[in-house]
Amino acid sequence: MVDYGIKYWSNDDFIIEDGLVKVNYQNKPALLEIVQEIREKGYKGPLLVRFPHLIHKQINQLFNAFKTAIDEYHYKGSFKAVFPLKVNQMPNFVLPLMDCVQGLSYGLEAGSKSELIVAMAYTNANAPITVNGFKDKEMISLGFIAAKMGHHITLTIEGLNELESIIQVAKELGAPYPNIGLRIRLHSTGTGVWGKSGGINAKFGLTSTELLEAIRRLEDSKLLAQFTMIHFHIGSQISDISPLKKAIREVGNIYTELRKMGAKNLTCVNIGGGLAVEYTQHEGENNRNYTLSEFSGDVVFSLKEIVRNKQEKEPDIFIESGRFVSANHAVLVAPVLELFSQEYDEKALRLKENNPPLIAEMLDLYQSVSEKNAIEYLHDSLDHMESLLTLFDLGYIDLTDRSNTEILVHLIIKKVIKLLKHKNHNDIIRIQEQVQERYLLNCSFFQSLPDYWGLGQSFPVMPLDRLNRRPTRSASLWDITCDSDGEIAFDAKKPLYLHDVDVMKEEYFLGFFLVGAYQEVLGMRHNLFTHPTEFSVVFDDDLNKGYEIENLLEAQNILDVLDDLDYDTKEIERILKQRIDDSGISDDDKKEVLGMLYVMLSENGYLRTITKDQ
Amino acid sequence: MVDYGIKYWSNDDFIIEDGLVKVNYQNKPALLEIVQEIREKGYKGPLLVRFPHLIHKQINQLFNAFKTAIDEYHYKGSFKAVFPLKVNQMPNFVLPLMDCVQGLSYGLEAGSKSELIVAMAYTNANAPITVNGFKDKEMISLGFIAAKMGHHITLTIEGLNELESIIQVAKELGAPYPNIGLRIRLHSTGTGVWGKSGGINAKFGLTSTELLEAIRRLEDSKLLAQFTMIHFHIGSQISDISPLKKAIREVGNIYTELRKMGAKNLTCVNIGGGLAVEYTQHEGENNRNYTLSEFSGDVVFSLKEIVRNKQEKEPDIFIESGRFVSANHAVLVAPVLELFSQEYDEKALRLKENNPPLIAEMLDLYQSVSEKNAIEYLHDSLDHMESLLTLFDLGYIDLTDRSNTEILVHLIIKKVIKLLKHKNHNDIIRIQEQVQERYLLNCSFFQSLPDYWGLGQSFPVMPLDRLNRRPTRSASLWDITCDSDGEIAFDAKKPLYLHDVDVMKEEYFLGFFLVGAYQEVLGMRHNLFTHPTEFSVVFDDDLNKGYEIENLLEAQNILDVLDDLDYDTKEIERILKQRIDDSGISDDDKKEVLGMLYVMLSENGYLRTITKDQ
Repeated sequence: MVDYGIKYWSNDDFIIEDGLVKVNYQNKPALLEIVQEIREKGYKGPLLVRFPHLIHKQINQLFNAFKTAIDEYHYKGSFKAVFPLKVNQMPNFVLPLMDCVQGLSYGLEAGSKSELIVAMAYTNANAPITVNGFKDKEMISLGFIAAKMGHHITLTIEGLNELESIIQVAKELGAPYPNIGLRIRLHSTGTGVWGKSGGINAKFGLTSTELLEAIRRLEDSKLLAQFTMIHFHIGSQISDISPLKKAIREVGNIYTELRKMGAKNLTCVNIGGGLAVEYTQHEGENNRNYTLSEFSGDVVFSLKEIVRNKQEKEPDIFIESGRFVSANHAVLVAPVLELFSQEYDEKALRLKENNPPLIAEMLDLYQSVSEKNAIEYLHDSLDHMESLLTLFDLGYIDLTDRSNTEILVHLIIKKVIKLLKHKNHNDIIRIQEQVQERYLLNCSFFQSLPDYWGLGQSFPVMPLDRLNRRPTRSASLWDITCDSDGEIAFDAKKPLYLHDVDVMKEEYFLGFFLVGAYQEVLGMRHNLFTHPTEFSVVFDDDLNKGYEIENLLEAQNILDVLDDLDYDTKEIERILKQRIDDSGISDDDKKEVLGMLYVMLSENGYLRTITKDQ
Repeated sequence: MVDYGIKYWSNDDFIIEDGLVKVNYQNKPALLEIVQEIREKGYKGPLLVRFPHLIHKQINQLFNAFKTAIDEYHYKGSFKAVFPLKVNQMPNFVLPLMDCVQGLSYGLEAGSKSELIVAMAYTNANAPITVNGFKDKEMISLGFIAAKMGHHITLTIEGLNELESIIQVAKELGAPYPNIGLRIRLHSTGTGVWGKSGGINAKFGLTSTELLEAIRRLEDSKLLAQFTMIHFHIGSQISDISPLKKAIREVGNIYTELRKMGAKNLTCVNIGGGLAVEYTQHEGENNRNYTLSEFSGDVVFSLKEIVRNKQEKEPDIFIESGRFVSANHAVLVAPVLELFSQEYDEKALRLKENNPPLIAEMLDLYQSVSEKNAIEYLHDSLDHMESLLTLFDLGYIDLTDRSNTEILVHLIIKKVIKLLKHKNHNDIIRIQEQVQERYLLNCSFFQSLPDYWGLGQSFPVMPLDRLNRRPTRSASLWDITCDSDGEIAFDAKKPLYLHDVDVMKEEYFLGFFLVGAYQEVLGMRHNLFTHPTEFSVVFDDDLNKGYEIENLLEAQNILDVLDDLDYDTKEIERILKQRIDDSGISDDDKKEVLGMLYVMLSENGYLRTITKDQ
């Protein structure tokens, strides 16, 4: 696995060339080159690197796929889409996104008041806005304000009480009204981790009975003309296409039924999000079993079929895919700070004249282990280690004996791996779990990969260079939080191998890819580590190096972090100064110490200098 | 379960009296009374209520338990402790904590630079500071600065490179030096979800071989006198006491060995955190199998035994329990916004002259179901529902038929529950899963109960009133995020029942208890919902109502949230105003709309008005 499965997950966004990961665009700069440029400016912690051209690429793929399907099936409805802001609300993602969709029917979806404000400010003219999730009267009024501003906004009703609020606000604020969507509670369910967003017991949507009631209420209050869209969502990251086809059949029937009941302005079927991203680095571990063109083709064809059977108008197709649009635009780069090796040299042994019998025996195992008896001797040595550790706990052997035990068992494991190198691969991987190298990364998994903690989501990871050298170490990854959950352990089923580097002498960086969806806003400030330093790489042929760094935003400094928690940072500064003043150190020292302290307060909390000579 | 298991989890912090949850302190105010007082001031979203007297209570219990054990065993070491800031860094927790530990050997533990700054500012004079986790040269220098300020600070070494950095900084900055601790990588492992923080493959700590090397380096660089503490941590929320005893045996031996090797100032054994909190609401589902006095007794006795055998000095005992000290001080109160009932009345049926045969059959099942055939008829009706939904998808029946199907199946389930009410409890619970009431809560589980999302941690939950009335609805809880993970589903193994309330007419609040540990800093801003409005309830006999509301901090308003994401909020205001100016509405309308918009931008993003008449 020297290519880190790049063919499975990168979609040609990134390629390996000359041992480096390169951005597969224009002059193809190496990620490492970009990272080094930023680090030379003094930014030492983790980096979040954005590539706006990849946002553009996804949008083009999406619109092209649906255009192709619509042309192929002579479909009469049009294609429209929104980006669900909950997936990424960061301005350095949203603004470039809105920039690249000008002229397209592509807008924003909001699930809260704050998101709706962003949508109202930044959605392009004539592009759609949808509002999902639970809404109070204030949020509904905000929707009416958006309509008055001229936005093409649709409020999706999640429950009948929301409809009552809309009717009431319509009376209070008058026309122009926003459009109204009804969310359907489907019988068909999704699959995959997020599958429960669909289904009859789902959190969202109206039952058939509620739909009938909603139509009646809309008619009564003369708002039926505003009802333009039905909406469903079978779950995020759909792994299999068939539940979606089943859902479209169900929704297609509901669409035609509602039109027959008099909902003549109902012209749009919103199929929600769910278009999956392929995160896997390993063969046979795919996250999705369909291509984008299969997805668009199936959606268009299924809708066309149902509607034809019922002799109704082909609806506009509306989608809300967020992960597909945003995941690939961002890469997290984490410097490796240190390797916590379990490499012991024979020289570390502190053998005595008279060693405890079990240690003498382990020494013998180590010296006489051969290919034939390797596994047997390995097991014997692990048994002996258990016994020796117990002897230590009971006070029978001393710390030097315990140390010799550790060293011998590791020497034996290493020798066994060497002896069996050409044998069964699985055996070796299992043994390698015992002798992982621990790579300490200057980042927080809680802050930068929250879905790893919450959902066990794996993100593709690889070093930025040395890709023409075979990685030899079975690796587990540690972050710098004080939390044992901040570890991506070596997994024999999805093994990660990294290079043997001496971080005292050379730099080594890992890139985590496809982190542009959800990972930023879900980021947790565990141990008060904040959003990493971020920037955008904008390509421009006219420039010398072919690209430009824009929107650089440094990780928050310590005082800002404490201010966010509502500490009185002025008080903190005052107390610290007072404590220095009151201390017994000399006046010169006081001045120096205070100076150092102020520098640190103005820096971010990630680690900086860990090697001796820097 | 009318008492919501309060006897298992509340530790007498809260009691039920007159149908209300009351704070079991001084004049025993009802939580509801406190909540209503705040809501009358206009704060409508979720509330985080802090009780500083409960912080004091935990500290007293901890110190008393260890004092008792030390007295009982005539133990010669003393007891010291720190609060690990990562568990709760909020000023409205930390400042009251530091206030109530004045005069005790109780300080703060820091795991990052930002946390260390808080510790340096707020740890009381002569109280200890410990610094765990990975450290760069800057963080180590900060530790030296703390020492120069007069703090009793101990830097725990997590790896040999850190020790090298300390030696180097010692040369650069000179005396006074901080104390040095060594973290031990134990062979014994913890149990429970967090167990992996202990053990030979743990993220943290030095092996025996590294300990020997560390001692040698300390000696060489004349810093051995600074080495005063060894540290271990077997994991958070220890469910069973025996792994801790095993770990103490191991560490006790290491302690005596290191002293024999010349570490004469090593006088302190730091047993880390892990003292568990009982979260369970259900009999037989305990999270821990020991009491506090068993915990303290076992620690003191085990250490005494080992040290006596080896004829060494009894060490000071140092602990870093965070969860035990902070969990109970905070309660999250979430208003119920709406009940998404699946209660259908017979009157909702829209039966036709000629119904599809399966619907006619369901109607018959509904009319003739009896105690004897209840389960059989229930299964038949669920089968029929499946078939009818398929018929709908295939275009054979219409939306009215589908609605009748839903209504009939629910009527049958309800009738079956009624018929079997006096029968086997488990059957009923299983059926009840089909007819849960969905309670929509005005809060975000991602923001306020992140460990529920990440670790599946349950927190005790109960309504604040109506506790003298039997709750009848099997409940699932929804938050207001647009995420299907924002649901605490009804669980037949840990069933939650709530009251049947009409939220249009009456208020209903749920309290989530024991949320004071980890839940705040791990809070995620999913959909941009922020930290709830928080305040402290401070008791004072002299006051009329017996307590006072302090440190009220409202949830962030929308503009502040967007500012935090680094949006240019001035630009947002300008664009919104421009869009209104450019719109086709009348000038009067423009003024009104702009006014409404400004009000909303200055409010927080939680929901406010959801009923018709408010």
